[in-house]
Amino acid sequence: MEKVRMKEATVVYLEKPDLKEPILIEGLPGVGNVGKIAIEHLIDEIKAKKFAEIYSVDFPPQVIVDSDGIVRLVKNELFYWKGEKDLIMLTGDYQGLSSKGQYILAEAILDVAEEFGTKMIYTLGGYGTGVEVEHPKVRGAATDKELVEELKAYGVVFRGEEGGGIIGASGLLLGLGKMRGMRGACLMGETSGYIVDPNSAREVIHILTEILGIKISFSRLDEKAEEVKRITDRIKSIEKTLSEKKDEDLRYIG
Amino acid sequence: MEKVRMKEATVVYLEKPDLKEPILIEGLPGVGNVGKIAIEHLIDEIKAKKFAEIYSVDFPPQVIVDSDGIVRLVKNELFYWKGEKDLIMLTGDYQGLSSKGQYILAEAILDVAEEFGTKMIYTLGGYGTGVEVEHPKVRGAATDKELVEELKAYGVVFRGEEGGGIIGASGLLLGLGKMRGMRGACLMGETSGYIVDPNSAREVIHILTEILGIKISFSRLDEKAEEVKRITDRIKSIEKTLSEKKDEDLRYIG
Amino acid sequence: MEKVRMKEATVVYLEKPDLKEPILIEGLPGVGNVGKIAIEHLIDEIKAKKFAEIYSVDFPPQVIVDSDGIVRLVKNELFYWKGEKDLIMLTGDYQGLSSKGQYILAEAILDVAEEFGTKMIYTLGGYGTGVEVEHPKVRGAATDKELVEELKAYGVVFRGEEGGGIIGASGLLLGLGKMRGMRGACLMGETSGYIVDPNSAREVIHILTEILGIKISFSRLDEKAEEVKRITDRIKSIEKTLSEKKDEDLRYIG
Amino acid sequence: MEKVRMKEATVVYLEKPDLKEPILIEGLPGVGNVGKIAIEHLIDEIKAKKFAEIYSVDFPPQVIVDSDGIVRLVKNELFYWKGEKDLIMLTGDYQGLSSKGQYILAEAILDVAEEFGTKMIYTLGGYGTGVEVEHPKVRGAATDKELVEELKAYGVVFRGEEGGGIIGASGLLLGLGKMRGMRGACLMGETSGYIVDPNSAREVIHILTEILGIKISFSRLDEKAEEVKRITDRIKSIEKTLSEKKDEDLRYIG
Repeated sequence: MEKVRMKEATVVYLEKPDLKEPILIEGLPGVGNVGKIAIEHLIDEIKAKKFAEIYSVDFPPQVIVDSDGIVRLVKNELFYWKGEKDLIMLTGDYQGLSSKGQYILAEAILDVAEEFGTKMIYTLGGYGTGVEVEHPKVRGAATDKELVEELKAYGVVFRGEEGGGIIGASGLLLGLGKMRGMRGACLMGETSGYIVDPNSAREVIHILTEILGIKISFSRLDEKAEEVKRITDRIKSIEKTLSEKKDEDLRYIG
Repeated sequence: MEKVRMKEATVVYLEKPDLKEPILIEGLPGVGNVGKIAIEHLIDEIKAKKFAEIYSVDFPPQVIVDSDGIVRLVKNELFYWKGEKDLIMLTGDYQGLSSKGQYILAEAILDVAEEFGTKMIYTLGGYGTGVEVEHPKVRGAATDKELVEELKAYGVVFRGEEGGGIIGASGLLLGLGKMRGMRGACLMGETSGYIVDPNSAREVIHILTEILGIKISFSRLDEKAEEVKRITDRIKSIEKTLSEKKDEDLRYIG
Repeated sequence: MEKVRMKEATVVYLEKPDLKEPILIEGLPGVGNVGKIAIEHLIDEIKAKKFAEIYSVDFPPQVIVDSDGIVRLVKNELFYWKGEKDLIMLTGDYQGLSSKGQYILAEAILDVAEEFGTKMIYTLGGYGTGVEVEHPKVRGAATDKELVEELKAYGVVFRGEEGGGIIGASGLLLGLGKMRGMRGACLMGETSGYIVDPNSAREVIHILTEILGIKISFSRLDEKAEEVKRITDRIKSIEKTLSEKKDEDLRYIG
Repeated sequence: MEKVRMKEATVVYLEKPDLKEPILIEGLPGVGNVGKIAIEHLIDEIKAKKFAEIYSVDFPPQVIVDSDGIVRLVKNELFYWKGEKDLIMLTGDYQGLSSKGQYILAEAILDVAEEFGTKMIYTLGGYGTGVEVEHPKVRGAATDKELVEELKAYGVVFRGEEGGGIIGASGLLLGLGKMRGMRGACLMGETSGYIVDPNSAREVIHILTEILGIKISFSRLDEKAEEVKRITDRIKSIEKTLSEKKDEDLRYIG
């Protein structure tokens, strides 16, 4: 085993796949965990293969313990898939903790992508609305006008407000990629921001797979979305009962 | 396109203009956004041309989305203008997030200015008073006594209190510039600190253009100032109504 | 004396002992101070010898003053013991203050251990339960399944929940060691997390010495545990009296 | 002028004095500003001469404006004095902002001192008691037992409690100096910690000058101490009046 030393961004290759202009797709933890849920569903469905792990001194200084009691460092992971259009997919446990670390991690990921010839990036995330969203739309932002127009045709909504921003890897990969001549877009599923949201993730991955021309099943995401709905419905029902009970109690006082 | 890697301060030139001892003028976001509003007005009025962009891992790790849905990295920008006295103007989205980053960014900007032969710096900002200021004065600080005297003749007010300070780029560019033998002054428009203040910015840019011997129109700043006044007047009127209403309600209780 | 300059991790050797595949055992300050109390007891009992000190610019910027008024820098310390299985023991005043510092310190410690041929690591700590624990169990996590099974035989409890984590040196030494091909386990004594807990430390060091096949006395830990118990019992008794007194007072009001 | 670039610690020499094993004395801002007041008094009385300035990207990113409106960077300063025993004195506007910066600044200062042959260090500071101190004692800590005994003879009090600490430059210079074979002591004047305390500073500098065998006047410190006393007495008198007034008002209610 090659000796690995932790730096701001340490890429450990498990394999160097042969890819042709792969499209980079990012889905790291964030608002409603939409991006991560979306990309993990894609990785599972298309059976993408892990080819690299990324470690960083800017990740939380801890290990993660799995259900068997086995420890591992916090990391990001890169998967690939060979199809009509080759794909590189990025997900992971955390984003960088500091501003500087986030920039350096994004640059390191773009270095990997550039080596494989990436010219196009999609970043996936949630768009926090602060209120419950039953039918989440997918909002977008992109590196150029042509891409904005293309994405509108897929139902992506563009409501740019002056001075808006996309924070973290979903933003930086596009901004830093643009500096390298890469095109890219961010797809953000509307979500309340209070719960993990597979329902929003489904809308994001639905549009992405249409864009990529890939057919996958959404049934596992549907199941997860239904489970989250069951839990939130139960909480709402309990809250309603408690609230009515309080009104009754107050009646006696009056 | 040349490959650009993000460092503590990364200067990307769009053009290398031929300038003669250009005066450096800084107006980055700060108290009341006075400095930024002032310099943006100057840049617009004299039709200054952008020649460089500055990126930094110490800027917020995000992209900014414009009203068309187009993303770009957070950055600072340098403009130039050739006139009786040549000018370099610095503005941008943010100042550095950390102490160290602020120092390094200021040094990088001075490196650029020094290369063009800069010997004089004006930094523009707001001076927060904590109370509404109808007729803002312009307060000053400078690298030497002669400059203090010169500026007093233009109506700049010097009320140095022992231990006062100018925080951020407006201060550091002067202090670090002084270490390189550059002279400079900070012009600070009095402002409440609670709202963006084009009224204060007008006073600052008015004095600066007099010093520089440049004639510009202030009508667009006047319009912005009136718009801000309309909004704050409306808020005050609503607050007054609410307050009177409350007094009335209380009368019934009494 | 060789000149020592403080870096992210500066190892100062007092002696370079001749060790054979020493097992690394870590016990730094943490939850209930369990790990530190445990390892200090072991070091005292087996009369381990200090051979290195570790300094860091990531430790708190202060000196520690002992009861004689003598100052010394904040540090970590490495001890060794030659037995059936050789041991290296790590303890100290503090863990690193920043995420990056924690990674670099853990790497520096593994560098030392690797140089001596370490292939096995035990890290000791507390597992905060938030409630008083009379009979603390020892929970575990390890780098591989075989080790999990071996530790279960010694009574170590594995209740991995998805996404659990071990924060700080106890986690990082295992995670980073695993990247170097070292095996290891973390032994965590259950503890409330509100007091220093020699009772929990005894359970941890009891299991560890069984694993290592070392026989030591626990009487000094027993004494410390009893002292802590006396103090907490007295506090509880006072609290009870105060609470009863309050109930009495309230009776008069009713 | 030589070009100066800001680093973690940038020493700019104004002069390289010829000194013989100078004693380093530190008095930077801290608890009650005792150390800084003490050393500034010494510098003034013995008419010490400034020979170096220290800048750092770890100082606050700002300039300080004096009463004439002149700006300068935040800095530390080194003075020297040639006498029976030569002295180097360190004071300044601020200590480093970060842990790492504090270590690096202390190392840089020790580099300067070592170059001149320094073997002895005194650091001056305040010891916060949390309550008003009318007759402040001077508490001490030192690098070795002999020095502790010597200082006791001068009335310095040693009440080391296990795990006590001296935070910042006053501690680090001793701890890091000890690593270079330098001896040293910290003299801490008891002070409430709520006000700047020239009274406490006088006690510190009184003992220090006795140790050094230097005779200076304390009248200016006495004046400052009296002024602070006048102000605090007035505040106390106002507080008392307000408190009595309230009692009176309450009597009417009863």
